[in-house]
Amino acid sequence: MRLLAISGSLRRDSYNTQLLRAAGEFASDELEIELYEDLATIPPYDSDEEALGTPAPVADLKRRIKAADVVLIATPEYNSSIPGQLKNALDWVSRPIKESPFRSKPAAVIGASTSAYGGVWAQAELRKVLGVLGARVVEGDVAVPHAAEQFDAEGRLTNAETREQLEQLLDDLVGSATPQPPQFTATATA
Amino acid sequence: MRLLAISGSLRRDSYNTQLLRAAGEFASDELEIELYEDLATIPPYDSDEEALGTPAPVADLKRRIKAADVVLIATPEYNSSIPGQLKNALDWVSRPIKESPFRSKPAAVIGASTSAYGGVWAQAELRKVLGVLGARVVEGDVAVPHAAEQFDAEGRLTNAETREQLEQLLDDLVGSATPQPPQFTATATA
Repeated sequence: MRLLAISGSLRRDSYNTQLLRAAGEFASDELEIELYEDLATIPPYDSDEEALGTPAPVADLKRRIKAADVVLIATPEYNSSIPGQLKNALDWVSRPIKESPFRSKPAAVIGASTSAYGGVWAQAELRKVLGVLGARVVEGDVAVPHAAEQFDAEGRLTNAETREQLEQLLDDLVGSATPQPPQFTATATA
Repeated sequence: MRLLAISGSLRRDSYNTQLLRAAGEFASDELEIELYEDLATIPPYDSDEEALGTPAPVADLKRRIKAADVVLIATPEYNSSIPGQLKNALDWVSRPIKESPFRSKPAAVIGASTSAYGGVWAQAELRKVLGVLGARVVEGDVAVPHAAEQFDAEGRLTNAETREQLEQLLDDLVGSATPQPPQFTATATA
């Protein structure tokens, strides 16, 4: 089982990247977590450029999303919405929409912020966008406010409630990738 | 009176850029419209990069917003939200927020789309973001659906209702930049 982890922040010591690393603590042994670290290499989306061919960094990101069983995105909130460069990468990945690597892919959104709200607007907007891309968006909030105070020296989350939320969301995300047996329900026959 | 026009699309024959040009038809002689054409040169926002100094293309955009009396943004809608590269430019421009060149700047949002809805979600999200940046966002929708069929050979809008809406919005935008005389209202005296 492979999880592709994408951080929406390019900062080297990003709290969102830390949050993705912290998620590793709650992963089962069968879950291989791959951190995507090339967000800065995605060029600005331009449909004229698209007509000339898919840029190599975009093709790489599409391939990695496709190869993953589930995708986990940790996003900061910039100006009450999705960071532009993260959205730009998703705009590229969405083209052409029929070949979206997110189609039917379980995906979840989490986020850390230095503000008091944890970036819930960016996360909500991102869930909407992922739905448009065809992802099966796993509901569940892990919004980490005051991020500077939420990690210990080993990079683990210190808040018990946040730890529980993240563990639960990872369970739900991984669980939604496992093929479910068909559900049989009693049907009324006339 | 100077209006800075920003298109959210990088495509050479962008309908949104066409829409901004079409707006020129309704501008008064005193209004100088400047089209921003360097959106593709804005690098991905990264606060580590910001700490090293403002990149030249970002400084240029900030200067041009500051020098304008009003700003008009025409945006396409990508995946039900703001195009990533446009949002990325605004993320840069917003830093530091206390020096936002949008502070108290009248701004309006319009958009064209090849879809049936005209990109109203992207526009709504963009108005929210501009509000966060301190802009005085002028309300009023000019959402042009089926954009491929909405311009004549001279680049003018053909739909009478759309023409009226755009003219009205430009009036409101320019009017909101003009210092208003104080409004005196009768006050009850005890």
